[in-house]
Amino acid sequence: MGGGQLGRMLLQAAANYPVETHVMENDPGCPAAHLCHHFTRGDITNYDDVYQFGKGLEALTIEIESVNEEALLQLEKEGVRVYPSPSALKTIKNKISQKSFYRDHEIPSPEFVVTQNRADLKAHLAFLPAVHKIGMGGYDGRGVEIIRNAEEISRAFDAPGVLEKMVRIKKELSIIIAANDKGETAMYPAVDMVFDNKLNVLEYQISPAELPEKVLWKAQAIARKVVKDLDSPGIFAIELFVDENDQVFVNETAPRVHNSGHHTIEAHFSSQFDMLWRIMLGYPLGNPAAITPAAIVNLLGAEGHSGEAVYEGLEEILRIENVFVHIYGKKETRPGRKMGHVTILSKEKQELIHQANRIRHNLKVVSAG
Amino acid sequence: MGGGQLGRMLLQAAANYPVETHVMENDPGCPAAHLCHHFTRGDITNYDDVYQFGKGLEALTIEIESVNEEALLQLEKEGVRVYPSPSALKTIKNKISQKSFYRDHEIPSPEFVVTQNRADLKAHLAFLPAVHKIGMGGYDGRGVEIIRNAEEISRAFDAPGVLEKMVRIKKELSIIIAANDKGETAMYPAVDMVFDNKLNVLEYQISPAELPEKVLWKAQAIARKVVKDLDSPGIFAIELFVDENDQVFVNETAPRVHNSGHHTIEAHFSSQFDMLWRIMLGYPLGNPAAITPAAIVNLLGAEGHSGEAVYEGLEEILRIENVFVHIYGKKETRPGRKMGHVTILSKEKQELIHQANRIRHNLKVVSAG
Repeated sequence: MGGGQLGRMLLQAAANYPVETHVMENDPGCPAAHLCHHFTRGDITNYDDVYQFGKGLEALTIEIESVNEEALLQLEKEGVRVYPSPSALKTIKNKISQKSFYRDHEIPSPEFVVTQNRADLKAHLAFLPAVHKIGMGGYDGRGVEIIRNAEEISRAFDAPGVLEKMVRIKKELSIIIAANDKGETAMYPAVDMVFDNKLNVLEYQISPAELPEKVLWKAQAIARKVVKDLDSPGIFAIELFVDENDQVFVNETAPRVHNSGHHTIEAHFSSQFDMLWRIMLGYPLGNPAAITPAAIVNLLGAEGHSGEAVYEGLEEILRIENVFVHIYGKKETRPGRKMGHVTILSKEKQELIHQANRIRHNLKVVSAG
Repeated sequence: MGGGQLGRMLLQAAANYPVETHVMENDPGCPAAHLCHHFTRGDITNYDDVYQFGKGLEALTIEIESVNEEALLQLEKEGVRVYPSPSALKTIKNKISQKSFYRDHEIPSPEFVVTQNRADLKAHLAFLPAVHKIGMGGYDGRGVEIIRNAEEISRAFDAPGVLEKMVRIKKELSIIIAANDKGETAMYPAVDMVFDNKLNVLEYQISPAELPEKVLWKAQAIARKVVKDLDSPGIFAIELFVDENDQVFVNETAPRVHNSGHHTIEAHFSSQFDMLWRIMLGYPLGNPAAITPAAIVNLLGAEGHSGEAVYEGLEEILRIENVFVHIYGKKETRPGRKMGHVTILSKEKQELIHQANRIRHNLKVVSAG
């Protein structure tokens, strides 16, 4: 369900296995539409569309949380295997239930209060500075606002959400865990997500993460607990904060293949996409180990550019020996839109950082004309 | 042109780049049909079908030599870029002109005579034992007969072909070379093709080939000369014999991506499929170097089985940590049909051989029921 870049890469991996593939998405020109056996135009948030599409299929997965989970629940009852389980999706897709899940299961996550609307925030001034997250529909950085003081409450969402205490972040990590129908799991090495603190954008991701063993163990134990308590097969990306006291908190969980695992295509024995097929096809879990360390740079639409996408600097980047380019085939670029990513392989962390910066500065998605 | 496994893997690689893809093939259920933007049903050997398909496209490539080269020639005249060039294809697709090309360019290749029909062979008894190769239409081991003595002439082809002197083979190699429009080339490491001499089938392929440096240099120099003299952009697989005196001979050349390069998907920075896209899209050539040594085992339809394909032993193979399975999605299996391949990664040659044998003995393609 969903025909974006995650579906696209999932379908690239599908062609290694004996499987017939179906995609549903509104836009027949979406990144994944031409890579499946059967494309169905439909609205993934609509009960009837999802139900009609899924009826009679053997297994279903999602590439975005907004898929209608009531339809998935009905399909599951009728014997369609769904990854993740609709109940895990329901827990995660609303930030209020996701945060409540962490609290109820004693999974460390920043302190929060539930807010029903913008005015509600005024009752929580002592809680500021905080992060306001919209309950439903947040995705890819949208639906999150930092509220530092009373004046900034005007920027909060006037819809149900959570107000989360700010953590003094030293480091952000992501850990991807795969779980199959038998409850067996495979954990990928933790990834460092390196942010530009000024612009608040992800600069690059590096695998494996570099952090003290004890902190890593804590992060792994927490990530494992999230997946165990969600009690669902599928792929889960657990994003974590490490604070200045080396405390580890769950930021959020995605119940699907995830941007922080794209390097696994080239750098790991079983990529996250390969792993999801193994789970859906009932094969043994793959090997999540790395063949080599790697970095990922996201290729975002340049500021001030909207329209037909043109890739500037691609030739120069393709001259670098250890980089792999993934362009998602989106016809239109918009500022900040994820248009592709680049993976860098090297055993030397300095080389990974050097090439990541080179790519960030030299590869641009602009609009034609 | 052509929708088999080579097209399939080429299209898996295409999804990394901004490119719109078209496939022509007679069978709409072929391995590549569902992985392109536009599928056209047509006969790749037919002038009109090829011409109509290619008209207006920017670039064309082939996955099989039988594509109508007169149509390609016309398309090239009209400005379509064709990989390989139609003239190189014409030289290679007929074994008579291919062998004449080697002789005319002083490229070492086993001695041969041209035969017009079966009866012709009787005039060359002194040439036996020899290998009779049909001029047109041989592919994947078909169109080749070993003629040891006068009695065996009955097995020869009653059609134009070449009779090649038998070489006392110590080793068979393959070298893949990429060439772009500017004449720049990139050479992949030589691969050892290991045959079962009793059954005359390829057991497995190992990269890099293990042979004395001077013999390797000779093989590389010969392979380079083949591509230089063909004077065409594209991907070329040069299959070579090394005889008992360490003389090196060209066996044959394929002007396209090739079975002996499938390990480059996982084991090399730029796979042969990635490399062909770089050539067709006018990007810099990729890096042909290996990330790690590798082996390939072909998955052939089992003897005595024809019909709907079932993969036996797949689960066991998928449990091995360093193997990658590629099933081509052919609905029907037949004895000896290429149904898939498995790539093994390891720094240890013994491990590569061990796993290759394990896979050969445990993975079978049989027919359902």
